[in-house]
Amino acid sequence: MNDLAHRLAVARGDETADLVVRGARVFSVFTREWLDADVAVVDGFVAGIGAYEGREVLDASGRFLVPGFVDAHVHIESSKLMVDEFARLVLPFGTTAVVADPHEIANVLGTDGVHWLLDACAQLPLDVYFMAPSCVPASAFESPRRALTIGDLEGLLRRSHVLGVAEMMNFPGVVAGDDAELAKVRLARHVDGHAPGLVGKRLQAYASVGIGSDHEASTLEEGRERLRAGMWLLIREASAARNLRALIPLAREYGPSRIAFCTDDRDPEHIASDGHVNALVRDAVALGVAPEDALVLATLSPALYHGLARLGAVAPGYQADLLVLPDLESFVPELVLKAGRPVDEIPSVAVPDWVRNTVRVGEVTPGSFRIPWAGGRARVIGLVPGQIVSEALADEPAVCDGCAVADPERDLAKIAVLERHHGTGRIGLGFVRGFGLRRGAFAATIAHDAHNVIVVGVDDAAMEQAVARLVELGGGLVVVDGRRVAAELPLPVAGLLADRALAEVLDASRALQAALRGLGVTIPEAFQVLAFLALSVVPSLKITDLGLVDVDRFELVPLAI
Amino acid sequence: MNDLAHRLAVARGDETADLVVRGARVFSVFTREWLDADVAVVDGFVAGIGAYEGREVLDASGRFLVPGFVDAHVHIESSKLMVDEFARLVLPFGTTAVVADPHEIANVLGTDGVHWLLDACAQLPLDVYFMAPSCVPASAFESPRRALTIGDLEGLLRRSHVLGVAEMMNFPGVVAGDDAELAKVRLARHVDGHAPGLVGKRLQAYASVGIGSDHEASTLEEGRERLRAGMWLLIREASAARNLRALIPLAREYGPSRIAFCTDDRDPEHIASDGHVNALVRDAVALGVAPEDALVLATLSPALYHGLARLGAVAPGYQADLLVLPDLESFVPELVLKAGRPVDEIPSVAVPDWVRNTVRVGEVTPGSFRIPWAGGRARVIGLVPGQIVSEALADEPAVCDGCAVADPERDLAKIAVLERHHGTGRIGLGFVRGFGLRRGAFAATIAHDAHNVIVVGVDDAAMEQAVARLVELGGGLVVVDGRRVAAELPLPVAGLLADRALAEVLDASRALQAALRGLGVTIPEAFQVLAFLALSVVPSLKITDLGLVDVDRFELVPLAI
Repeated sequence: MNDLAHRLAVARGDETADLVVRGARVFSVFTREWLDADVAVVDGFVAGIGAYEGREVLDASGRFLVPGFVDAHVHIESSKLMVDEFARLVLPFGTTAVVADPHEIANVLGTDGVHWLLDACAQLPLDVYFMAPSCVPASAFESPRRALTIGDLEGLLRRSHVLGVAEMMNFPGVVAGDDAELAKVRLARHVDGHAPGLVGKRLQAYASVGIGSDHEASTLEEGRERLRAGMWLLIREASAARNLRALIPLAREYGPSRIAFCTDDRDPEHIASDGHVNALVRDAVALGVAPEDALVLATLSPALYHGLARLGAVAPGYQADLLVLPDLESFVPELVLKAGRPVDEIPSVAVPDWVRNTVRVGEVTPGSFRIPWAGGRARVIGLVPGQIVSEALADEPAVCDGCAVADPERDLAKIAVLERHHGTGRIGLGFVRGFGLRRGAFAATIAHDAHNVIVVGVDDAAMEQAVARLVELGGGLVVVDGRRVAAELPLPVAGLLADRALAEVLDASRALQAALRGLGVTIPEAFQVLAFLALSVVPSLKITDLGLVDVDRFELVPLAI
Repeated sequence: MNDLAHRLAVARGDETADLVVRGARVFSVFTREWLDADVAVVDGFVAGIGAYEGREVLDASGRFLVPGFVDAHVHIESSKLMVDEFARLVLPFGTTAVVADPHEIANVLGTDGVHWLLDACAQLPLDVYFMAPSCVPASAFESPRRALTIGDLEGLLRRSHVLGVAEMMNFPGVVAGDDAELAKVRLARHVDGHAPGLVGKRLQAYASVGIGSDHEASTLEEGRERLRAGMWLLIREASAARNLRALIPLAREYGPSRIAFCTDDRDPEHIASDGHVNALVRDAVALGVAPEDALVLATLSPALYHGLARLGAVAPGYQADLLVLPDLESFVPELVLKAGRPVDEIPSVAVPDWVRNTVRVGEVTPGSFRIPWAGGRARVIGLVPGQIVSEALADEPAVCDGCAVADPERDLAKIAVLERHHGTGRIGLGFVRGFGLRRGAFAATIAHDAHNVIVVGVDDAAMEQAVARLVELGGGLVVVDGRRVAAELPLPVAGLLADRALAEVLDASRALQAALRGLGVTIPEAFQVLAFLALSVVPSLKITDLGLVDVDRFELVPLAI
């Protein structure tokens, strides 16, 4: 009982606060006003706003005091960082809470991995909430370690920090009334959406089962339609998909009360250079949104949407996640208080053995990549610059010793996906155009969503070597030039996350980029593009360990036409 | 599974809706816009908004279609009507859901009564949600049938239609950090407030423990302070306390997103003549609030505040509680659709014997009201016109046969409260000034909050007779003139509610008023004023079965000074 009684005594002014922030203009998210008052903090919570005394006093004269930012939807795995390093990266930008969908980890490590990650977050000065991944696997054409069942989701939902069901990515299944999808929707009152391009009656249908949000709207009219349908509009500014500029006029038109910001998938390079949720606030203000409204989009709105009743405001009873801002333009905090304390040393999260060593492929030899070929045309995956969709092309491959082979002169590389969770030796083979690769190979264990091994090469021996190196590393990104590993980023945690500091990850990323350029690769974010070539729910032609997937027809198709 | 699959099929346009509302301007609470579209209803829910076909089509051309109104805080018992008759009264005004604090019933019938009433509501075409009564008794100076314990509240909170903890009326106890009050606050994440006049640090303290709302603000500055402190402002327009005019400028200033309407305590006469939640919308618009904002205050806002995720909007997946309005001035609906169907016959709720016959007083004779008196001044309760507070007066009573007696010439009547739950014979005696009673007596079993028998008279025999009649009736309101019952309203259900139709209740009320005037009573709502003279938590001098209560000092005081 004592904590509340002490908080009350501090609020009344009868006992001394742990900390008083003095002199700042204090933002009220509820009235969108600036209040000139002290903020009294005790036991990590705001006790009161008024005239208070504290054992410590923080002079914030001339500064703006606002609530910590809340990311309404994020895949932490996109940062390639362990959660402690992710926290070290985003907290200085003012992100004090995130609602994460851990579906990458879930594809590799199942619910065990989700529970482990959630436990690991408990010691961090960053509030990490999870949504239970709804789509593991993303489709029947993908092979995660193990599919998550309804029972698995129920188990996750029992945890206090699991708020609901994560983005229902199989939106065609929901709209069609697929029993398995509706069973997931029924699991919770709080269900995130994911419905790119969905409009009209099909959007009404998607909303009618109670799906509460969408972060895939990319046009003003799509955004407007979602708001009218009662869905929260999560404005997403990721590394690849960037929707803020298109959607922000809706915040000006309708106000901030049904709109929130999210980052979804941000690369470590992107966060390090540009920022995190604070970057959305900055850009919104630059695009003409009142700072007070932009702040609500990053604080109260995401907290309300997710039912986080004690986050998102500077007010009595709210957690004292406070940002001291020097101005209302850059939105880079001078100081971040998490639960009332400056963030200093963040404890390292231990990485147990069982979350490493997850790359188990069958025997791989250069012969594994051979494609016996009688001649004729083959299906070819065509890259689309700057997008995660692909084209379904067709071309006649070069033939050598009765096998179809890569042909760098025509920018035709070989691509393979190798099942890597159970060592089955299952492999899907095909061709891809658009990387510009002239020699060697590159491979990754980041390959949405099942995160099998994906490798592109013009040389079967280099492909074999790249895969072998990934097995040695326990996962990561590798570039092989001839017989030599030219660059690599080890991602030993589930093959998805580094166990190193941000700076090392960024260094390795730069080295990878340089090595790829050395092999002739012409596109800037080749590994990012590669990672989506296995995602069987984004059009048009993709590849998994089961073979080529025609996403538009939603079926496996042979390589030969 | 079939309901959602069918709803989806209707939303997609693949199956026919049960009902389509066509031609109306449809209100989007989320964007505060009017949409020209059909609304498709299936199985009681909105499937979609667009172009739809239905087995039934309702032509609402030229009309406005808005969500049903939600009362954010109401004591149904104030209507003196059983819940079915209450539903018959308020549904035509467009109130389709209420969040009720059943603390009157709880004082008389305990949790059994609350469970019974909630069960009785299940069959009604009115959504009745409860908050678990937090203050039974209101103070240690009152004698309900049985105090509600923490365990009782936990039991109530397990029910799906019990949303949280009802108004924490003992706000001084909360602010002081009283263990028993904090234990109640900890029971739920959703806790209503009640903090008349509380400002400054004490308000910060009250909010700091997570109390989410207040409906007792009566000035602009009080309202503003509550909003800034993160509390929802429930604007209350009851029969006695009317705060809309004072507070509505805040909805203009800050918008409707943290403000909701409530009726709290409305007499049946008041509802019948003026309306219910719709009257607040009407008055707000008349006072210059945009109709779109006023509608949000009566629909989305209360639903959001209480976490009623499927109420308060016309949107896919929301319950089809729809009002057809002819204009945006009167806000009296032409048609009310509850879960997609017109409200016709409302089934009668059976009243079991055990909720009747609750008036058990000890042996009462005219002698019970004798006040032996040695002379000198007595404490006198002074009425304050139009308010539920009283004054603490002092006067020298007339003495006859060694007893203090009433003195109509000086408007000094005798007042008594008799314990009526356990037949203990406990009685509190005193004097009251302000009714203007010249002869006879009047008595009631509505006496906040413990609802013991309260009686005022200038004639001990008439007082005895009034009490005896209440026992015969099982509770109600009675006026006795000489030896004759001049008028009465039987309230056999817990001594609080009639088992009759509204019209009979109104007729009886008028007869009671006339009879009181016949006895010389000069104030218009004498029984309403009487009902609050036993409420030991509203200043200044009150009376319970334990005797006189000095509310300012919060202690029992003797009659003699």
